[in-house]
Amino acid sequence: MNPIDFYFDFSSPYGYLGSTRIDALAEKYGRQVSWRPILLGATFKVTGLPPLPTVPLKGDYSKRDFERSARFYGVPYNQPSVFPIASQAPARAFYWLDQTDPAKAKQLAKALLKAYFVDDINISNPSDTLRVAANLGIDAAALEGAINDPAIKGKLKAEVERGIARGVFGSPFVFVDDEPFWGVDRFDQIERWLREGGF
Amino acid sequence: MNPIDFYFDFSSPYGYLGSTRIDALAEKYGRQVSWRPILLGATFKVTGLPPLPTVPLKGDYSKRDFERSARFYGVPYNQPSVFPIASQAPARAFYWLDQTDPAKAKQLAKALLKAYFVDDINISNPSDTLRVAANLGIDAAALEGAINDPAIKGKLKAEVERGIARGVFGSPFVFVDDEPFWGVDRFDQIERWLREGGF
Repeated sequence: MNPIDFYFDFSSPYGYLGSTRIDALAEKYGRQVSWRPILLGATFKVTGLPPLPTVPLKGDYSKRDFERSARFYGVPYNQPSVFPIASQAPARAFYWLDQTDPAKAKQLAKALLKAYFVDDINISNPSDTLRVAANLGIDAAALEGAINDPAIKGKLKAEVERGIARGVFGSPFVFVDDEPFWGVDRFDQIERWLREGGF
Repeated sequence: MNPIDFYFDFSSPYGYLGSTRIDALAEKYGRQVSWRPILLGATFKVTGLPPLPTVPLKGDYSKRDFERSARFYGVPYNQPSVFPIASQAPARAFYWLDQTDPAKAKQLAKALLKAYFVDDINISNPSDTLRVAANLGIDAAALEGAINDPAIKGKLKAEVERGIARGVFGSPFVFVDDEPFWGVDRFDQIERWLREGGF
C-alpha cells in the first residue's frame, strides 16, 4: 500500500500535535508515513489567507485552542515565546537527512518539534537546528552545509510546490491515497477511512 | 447551571452538522442549550477573513469536507445549489419566535436547516422561510411582519454584536460557561469539558 503523506510546517502547533500521533495511527492499519515538511507562508500566498495569530478574534482563540488541544491529546506543549517562525532551517535539515536515512530524518523532525513546542528553542535559527541535530549524533558541519546548499533549498521548494499542487493549504495536511484531510481534528476521520477503506 | 450557548449561521454546513448533535450532547450532562443564530458576514468584517467557498484550495477542500463530515456523523446532507446565502430571514424568524416560545423556535431552526441542507430550499428568500414555518403551523402573516420589523432586525443585530464581543468568529461556536469552542470538530472536547468540568 502507498505510504500516507503527512504534510506539516515546523512552526505549526496543530502540525506538532499531529506529528505525535500519525505514525501510531498509520501503523495500526499497516501503513507507513512519509513526512513532508512545508512552508505555510507559501500556501498563504496562494490562498490569500493571513497567518493565524494575526487574525482578530481567531488569533486569540487559537492560542487558547493550541494549549487546550494539547491537553486533550495528552501532548506536552508550551506556547513558544517567538511564534510563528520561519521554518526553512529545520525543513531543509529534514530533507537533507531524508535522502539517505528517512528513519533518522523523522527522529530529527520529532526532536526539532519538541525543541520548539516544549523547550522554547527557536529552531528558525540554523544554529539551534544544528544543536538539536548534534544531540542526535548528526554531523553539524555537514548539516550546516546542507542548509545552505542550493540543491536542498530546491528540494524543499519542490516539495512545497508539489504539496500546493495537491491542494495543501494548512498544517497538518494528510493524504490517505488521494483523500485529503486537513487538521489534527480530522484524525478520527482518517482512522475510519483507514479502517473501512473510505466511507 | 447556565445554558450552553450555541452560535451558528443558517448558511453554515458545519453549523448545521453541529445543530443535529448539540442538544443531545448537552442533555447527556444535564444542560440546556440556547440557540443563537448569527451572521458570519458581520464576523468577516471584524476578522478580515473571506467567505470559505471563495478561498483558493481551501474552498474546494471544504466542499469535500462538508459532505465527508456529514457521512462521518451520519447526518443527511446535500450541498445546496445556492451557497452561501444571506441568512437574515431565517435568523429573524428564529428570534421573533424565540421571544414567546423558545422550544418552537428551535423546532423552526431545525426545519429551516433541513430545508436548506437536505431539500435545497433557498431559505434566504423570506417566502421560503415563511413556507417552512407554515408547515409547522406558524402564522405566516405574523412572521412576515416580524421579518420586516425594525425591533426584530435590531434583536438579530444585537445578538451578532454580543457574539462578536464574546469572540465568535465562526460557526458553530459554542460556549460552555465561559469556555469557547469553535467547530463541530470540537464537540469531542466539549463533551470532555462537560464530563470533567474542564481539563
